[in-house]
Amino acid sequence: MSHVDLVDDVREVGTAVLEALVAHVESVRAGSGEVVSAADIDTVSKRLELRRWVEEGGMTLPELLSFVTTYSDISASHHHPGYMGHQIAPSDTPGVVADLLQAVTNNIPLVYELAPAAAAVDRAVCRWMLDHVGWGETGLGAITNGGTLGNLTALLAARSHADTTAWQRGTPGDLVILAPATSHYSVRKAAAVMGLGVNGVYPLRTDALGRIDPAGLAPALADVRAQGLRPVAVVANGCATGTGLYDPIAEVAQFCDANGLWLHMDGAHGAAALLSPRLRGLLAGLERADSTVWDGHKMLRTSALCTGVLFREKRYLDTMFKQDASYLYRPEAEDVDPGQYTFETSKAPLGLKVLLTLAYRGEASLRSYVERQYGLATELWELIQERPDFTAPYQPQSNILCFRYEPCGDRQLELRARLIQDGRFYLSSFRLGGRPYLRASLMSPTTDRETLHQLLEVITKVAAV
Amino acid sequence: MSHVDLVDDVREVGTAVLEALVAHVESVRAGSGEVVSAADIDTVSKRLELRRWVEEGGMTLPELLSFVTTYSDISASHHHPGYMGHQIAPSDTPGVVADLLQAVTNNIPLVYELAPAAAAVDRAVCRWMLDHVGWGETGLGAITNGGTLGNLTALLAARSHADTTAWQRGTPGDLVILAPATSHYSVRKAAAVMGLGVNGVYPLRTDALGRIDPAGLAPALADVRAQGLRPVAVVANGCATGTGLYDPIAEVAQFCDANGLWLHMDGAHGAAALLSPRLRGLLAGLERADSTVWDGHKMLRTSALCTGVLFREKRYLDTMFKQDASYLYRPEAEDVDPGQYTFETSKAPLGLKVLLTLAYRGEASLRSYVERQYGLATELWELIQERPDFTAPYQPQSNILCFRYEPCGDRQLELRARLIQDGRFYLSSFRLGGRPYLRASLMSPTTDRETLHQLLEVITKVAAV
Repeated sequence: MSHVDLVDDVREVGTAVLEALVAHVESVRAGSGEVVSAADIDTVSKRLELRRWVEEGGMTLPELLSFVTTYSDISASHHHPGYMGHQIAPSDTPGVVADLLQAVTNNIPLVYELAPAAAAVDRAVCRWMLDHVGWGETGLGAITNGGTLGNLTALLAARSHADTTAWQRGTPGDLVILAPATSHYSVRKAAAVMGLGVNGVYPLRTDALGRIDPAGLAPALADVRAQGLRPVAVVANGCATGTGLYDPIAEVAQFCDANGLWLHMDGAHGAAALLSPRLRGLLAGLERADSTVWDGHKMLRTSALCTGVLFREKRYLDTMFKQDASYLYRPEAEDVDPGQYTFETSKAPLGLKVLLTLAYRGEASLRSYVERQYGLATELWELIQERPDFTAPYQPQSNILCFRYEPCGDRQLELRARLIQDGRFYLSSFRLGGRPYLRASLMSPTTDRETLHQLLEVITKVAAV
Repeated sequence: MSHVDLVDDVREVGTAVLEALVAHVESVRAGSGEVVSAADIDTVSKRLELRRWVEEGGMTLPELLSFVTTYSDISASHHHPGYMGHQIAPSDTPGVVADLLQAVTNNIPLVYELAPAAAAVDRAVCRWMLDHVGWGETGLGAITNGGTLGNLTALLAARSHADTTAWQRGTPGDLVILAPATSHYSVRKAAAVMGLGVNGVYPLRTDALGRIDPAGLAPALADVRAQGLRPVAVVANGCATGTGLYDPIAEVAQFCDANGLWLHMDGAHGAAALLSPRLRGLLAGLERADSTVWDGHKMLRTSALCTGVLFREKRYLDTMFKQDASYLYRPEAEDVDPGQYTFETSKAPLGLKVLLTLAYRGEASLRSYVERQYGLATELWELIQERPDFTAPYQPQSNILCFRYEPCGDRQLELRARLIQDGRFYLSSFRLGGRPYLRASLMSPTTDRETLHQLLEVITKVAAV
């Protein structure tokens, strides 16, 4: 098949692959097959014949279709009703179309000139996000490759805000980020990457469920200042990855306002609650924060990656990134050359996935998806209340719930391993208050109340074996 | 169209979109349409009706197809014979299939368990790259989101190597990176991000074409040490973004070896020369470097992003990233959980694009693509030698060549603007020795000798207007 070029075969190949993928998703949605494969990496590599394909090539179209099917079967099935593992979107059609469009055009909106349509789309999606956050008038955003990079980008802006010389002269040794231990580990990673060190994260006091205790903020700030340290930012969760619980943003924002502190909210998962009038109260106060991130590849149904990193004020970005590439960017083109505000140089136009979702499904469809999935966690919590053998330490605020099958005590991870081996369900785990919990993240649109009932039944059964 | 889910329509929609895209690429390959659109962002936004789609939704299938066509027409056409702007791949079928597969399955190989097939594929592609570099026995790599992130990842490993406390305790103030001014700006960005500051890059002496002068290395090191600074790494270009010229890697590697310095080679574009027995001499000595990056979305024909970040020794990674997420990663699973060595938490299985290219087209097809495109730049140089009105300051080593239409003197950027306005060609520009040059990056498989001849003719014509 060598030396054939795109148009000679992409129509035939693409159509056949699409057909194979649809068949796979149809079967997965009906609950067939293992939710995740438990085979080891060498077995998987052999089944996929990776060594042969790398070394010899020569794959024919039927072999490609067979590869696609095997690959799909070995993959985690996010459309499976029993998939409750991590916050990964079960893709929807508009995002798939966007990925296909980018796969063929490969436009890179580093500067507007290089990818006019892509840059216009990314700008439109940022504005949509900014409007929902409440920063439509003054703010600026970019679409970046994931929440980890988004958190780093926001904290780099905060670093530049705390010390305008840091970008040119290096990170001073007296900077510190204040964050609860329940922050996503990308916050500690960002601190380490940007030169504060993991030890440069000062742990904020939390309640028993890991939410920031607003009463602990003043003593923390006093302590930091007494040590001669300068705070870069306070980081809050909206919501926390592990528990799905929202920090009291309004109270934290009020404290940050009063003390001139940068507030960054990690909304990678939970910012999607902004789409629902019923749920957006969870994020009250966010409009007073300084920066936030919002992932498309979690609650907006896109493939990975697609993250909005959003700033309340355009001017926050004046002292980072852009001055380092003056030969590429035009200062007068702010808000037009997306590369001025992204870590990346080359970058896919990731916003296209959200744009087509809004266009083709409508924002109302995302709202109802978020409300449905958040509601499912509450249903799981209700089912657990009815059964004395299960406990959950809190009523969920999102579509994430930690819980425990009590007869297993602290052997919840062993129980989880058995459940995965069984193949019908996939759960993650989380350590809360020093003890292990099972963790359900309800992402699949095919999961329903009956699935949740089955989950508790199957857990009971595999625990008894 | 709201409330319909993936399988209900992805077959029909996907097939129709694929058809529209093929028609677009067919027309572009034949040289029709503008290479890039010169319309401004507000005009483009209106043509795409972005405001309507974001606010109202309601897009029908015919409207989606119309959007796809308009979007493609406004995009830069990398398959157009006249596209010679930047090193962005004109996608090929296998990469498109890989993007489609990921778009639907959305598997995220953070840890092996979450995406077994994807993790196995990424590992196989890293090993293929490591084998070509010469680090197959001892090395380790990861596939990451782009060269900028790849360079940062490699330099973070170098920072940890230079100071094992940096990850935990912060970046010390005495670290410095040695790099030529011709390094990609992501190297200065990495220095600024990781806490050394842009000023923490010490400029290495170069020849008139911006290549590292090996004789300047010893004085630079002596100067750095005399200032009480500790070198983190020497960065070399293989090849330089602006000129496409390769630094003398072997001599630089010898110096680094002898002085215990970490050598990082930025091979984002030029590492692809490793695939050709005829060209791989350009990278002689690379096997003695410590780290490199290699982009798939440049010379390996994949869509953005897809970058291998490769390390000569697995142990280099022991003091960064992984220890910060012990609750996620298993120390015994090194080489299996890709997230241990990537900046990202969530990440697409980007290696799949390279794997399917190797499988379906064969490595030989990539080799002949690289050789063909590198050869084209030499052909352009030869054409320029025949014409007294054009000059090129060097014979190209890759598929990138800077040149000048002499009658325009230092008004080359004005000439470039006219050329873009004309619509038949798209060139970038570069400042070399303080003077502006036109810059051709020959990426399109449809560009041939006749296209290059036409380019010089059209330049002459638009300059005369």
